[in-house]
Amino acid sequence: MIDPGLPKGFRDYLPEEEITRQNMIDTIRSVFERFGFIPLNTPAIERKEILTGGDDHFGMHIFTTGIDGDKEKLALRFDLTVPLARVVSEHQNEIQKPFKRYQIGTVWRGESPQAGRYREFTQCDADIVGSANILADSEIIALMHETLSGLDVGPFRIRVNNRKVLNALASYAGFSKERLPSVLRVVDKIEKQGWKKVQGELLKEGLLTGQTKKIQDILEIQNSDKEKMLNEAQDLLGKESREGISELQECMGYLETFGVPEESWVFDFSVARGLGYYTGIVFESILINLPELGSVMSGGRYDNLVSRFSSQSVPATGVSLGIDRLFAGVRSFKGYKAKKSVSRVLILNFDPESEKTCVEALSAIRKAGIPSEIYLGNEKTMKGQLGYALKREIPFVLIIGSDERKQGIAQLKDLSKRTQNSIPLSSLGKEIRLYIG
Amino acid sequence: MIDPGLPKGFRDYLPEEEITRQNMIDTIRSVFERFGFIPLNTPAIERKEILTGGDDHFGMHIFTTGIDGDKEKLALRFDLTVPLARVVSEHQNEIQKPFKRYQIGTVWRGESPQAGRYREFTQCDADIVGSANILADSEIIALMHETLSGLDVGPFRIRVNNRKVLNALASYAGFSKERLPSVLRVVDKIEKQGWKKVQGELLKEGLLTGQTKKIQDILEIQNSDKEKMLNEAQDLLGKESREGISELQECMGYLETFGVPEESWVFDFSVARGLGYYTGIVFESILINLPELGSVMSGGRYDNLVSRFSSQSVPATGVSLGIDRLFAGVRSFKGYKAKKSVSRVLILNFDPESEKTCVEALSAIRKAGIPSEIYLGNEKTMKGQLGYALKREIPFVLIIGSDERKQGIAQLKDLSKRTQNSIPLSSLGKEIRLYIG
Repeated sequence: MIDPGLPKGFRDYLPEEEITRQNMIDTIRSVFERFGFIPLNTPAIERKEILTGGDDHFGMHIFTTGIDGDKEKLALRFDLTVPLARVVSEHQNEIQKPFKRYQIGTVWRGESPQAGRYREFTQCDADIVGSANILADSEIIALMHETLSGLDVGPFRIRVNNRKVLNALASYAGFSKERLPSVLRVVDKIEKQGWKKVQGELLKEGLLTGQTKKIQDILEIQNSDKEKMLNEAQDLLGKESREGISELQECMGYLETFGVPEESWVFDFSVARGLGYYTGIVFESILINLPELGSVMSGGRYDNLVSRFSSQSVPATGVSLGIDRLFAGVRSFKGYKAKKSVSRVLILNFDPESEKTCVEALSAIRKAGIPSEIYLGNEKTMKGQLGYALKREIPFVLIIGSDERKQGIAQLKDLSKRTQNSIPLSSLGKEIRLYIG
Repeated sequence: MIDPGLPKGFRDYLPEEEITRQNMIDTIRSVFERFGFIPLNTPAIERKEILTGGDDHFGMHIFTTGIDGDKEKLALRFDLTVPLARVVSEHQNEIQKPFKRYQIGTVWRGESPQAGRYREFTQCDADIVGSANILADSEIIALMHETLSGLDVGPFRIRVNNRKVLNALASYAGFSKERLPSVLRVVDKIEKQGWKKVQGELLKEGLLTGQTKKIQDILEIQNSDKEKMLNEAQDLLGKESREGISELQECMGYLETFGVPEESWVFDFSVARGLGYYTGIVFESILINLPELGSVMSGGRYDNLVSRFSSQSVPATGVSLGIDRLFAGVRSFKGYKAKKSVSRVLILNFDPESEKTCVEALSAIRKAGIPSEIYLGNEKTMKGQLGYALKREIPFVLIIGSDERKQGIAQLKDLSKRTQNSIPLSSLGKEIRLYIG
């Protein structure tokens, strides 16, 4: 006998979770499509060097894979951005640019299961490839707003920054440009760890206390007047920050035009987005009632990713949402209610002589587009079958016994309201809608 | 520079294919849900022994996977049925039975890429676990009919048989019961290879010519009267086939009640379904215009699969559809037309002073639920931007230049009909529906 357990770091979504999770994915997809993004589908398996960029010391733990005996070094994708860059390079002539694509797919990372982390995730990505226009960055932020508004996640806040502004930190604080990537990796932890810890790490990285204080000056600029906040930063950072600040100014104007409410987003100069490949405007979002989740949807501009595969330079901007983390958040809300069924109606099946009529009724209801089922289990009594409907939380039950059959009707029981109505079998498909909505 | 190629046996679905493929999956899912099936989601990665049943000489090439340094032997699933059996064993107390679950997911197999075969597939499975009722088998066949009718695949034929009938072959043809599995594996090829080759292989397996002829007698029974066909088989096979024949009789009655048209399905005693785990009624389906695809949706009853993991015996029946093969079929039809966009409207963006009005118009159209986009590329002229709409096959273009803005209108161009209409900007969201449907 084999133990039916899963490997560590993996999990099933049983239907009562998966129904809600799928609904979330449906909502996300419909918002992405409303914004004109078109779907792309790439395989889960890629050549390993595609994913690592050929770097043997690639920092992330990735799943390698293969068929015994095959020589190619293969691995499971850890995000959907690298495969997008590969596709854009490989199919440059077929793909019409700007290319607004979305992809919803599984990715794998070797996170430590000891720490309660999972190793398989579903990501929902939307990217615009081939546009350097700030309108494109702004549209991605408007998309974030629309997506998170469409999901049942409560209030949220989008935080916007520009890597071009942070790049001016080096001369302002007086450390060498080569240190910028590692400084930003440390700064990226400020939301989780607070300034004190970040400062400690910066000192360990070899920065002087005075330099960290100048960094702090910038990261902590706050002003409810966004225009003033940009001016403050530019006053401190000077000429080198001008391009970045003016892009943020432009973005602010577009967000207003897109109708993104002023209170739903802020500028925040501490948003660094650790990943090395960002080059311009970056953004992330937190749920106000669940800040401990960290950013649930984030991204930014990355103008150089395709350069790994080809000499062409392709500007790009995009966003990624991790559905599993967001779902865990939604599930932890007070008002959350698991859905146990998609069926609206269960037809009981306790009288062998009425079974044929029951199956015909089932077909009629389904033809009317109503998800429904007939009882298929071992309970022979009406009571036993009703118990199944209650456990599965199917809201309506349809009863056709010999009496009903003779009268040419079916009894429709509303299990929550505890009401019952007779419906003529001859017009079941039409009339049932009146009761079940 | 890294070569952006995929490993052998893998492929991308670019949007102009993926849009149609996604629509097919949407249709399948909505039929599954209409039949009351609920979604389950299991990880792509399982412990290897779960998949192989602990058999070191497991016949199928599967992808092994892991994180360097981890000890657990892991592999990628090759179907969705074994994971279902695992879930049913692992969560026996949480899962309410009968359990009607569907799963749409990726599976991987080490098929030979040299033969033009792919190694990654999307499968759509629907199974009923915990019901031994023939009504359940019949519902699965009705589901096949409804699913294939809902897809754009032309006429099809469902073929139904019962492993319990085939089990009677051994005594009828006079070979030992132990040989039955290998005989059925050979018989399963009859559709592709024809009787002559199958007979040759049966002789190689050690059967006598007389025995193969008796097998042929059964496999070739045909009669447009289904009732007579069953009687013929039972007359030949005798008592041992009685249970199997009577189940088929019951199934026939249910299919009629479900409204599955008589001409869309047949009994066919040559349907063996090679897989060892089937125990009762089995079925497959072919597209009449593309018989070379083989069966596009198939399944059957398997009452013992869970016994790998637990001592409980759980009856089950289900069906699996391979979306990639079916899509390849759909794409080869004459009438097939690739979809290049989901957007119904492209808003041109050539006059910087009108850009703000254009973005506001975009938001209004999206708010009306219409997938739409604004031009984000480098073309500055109206003509260049129109070219983009034509290449992307976006059916409508909305034009707001300085003249339109002053008049408070937008021009809506229908690119296929070559007509143009003015719409007041103040009621754009409402009125645009009148034109674009």
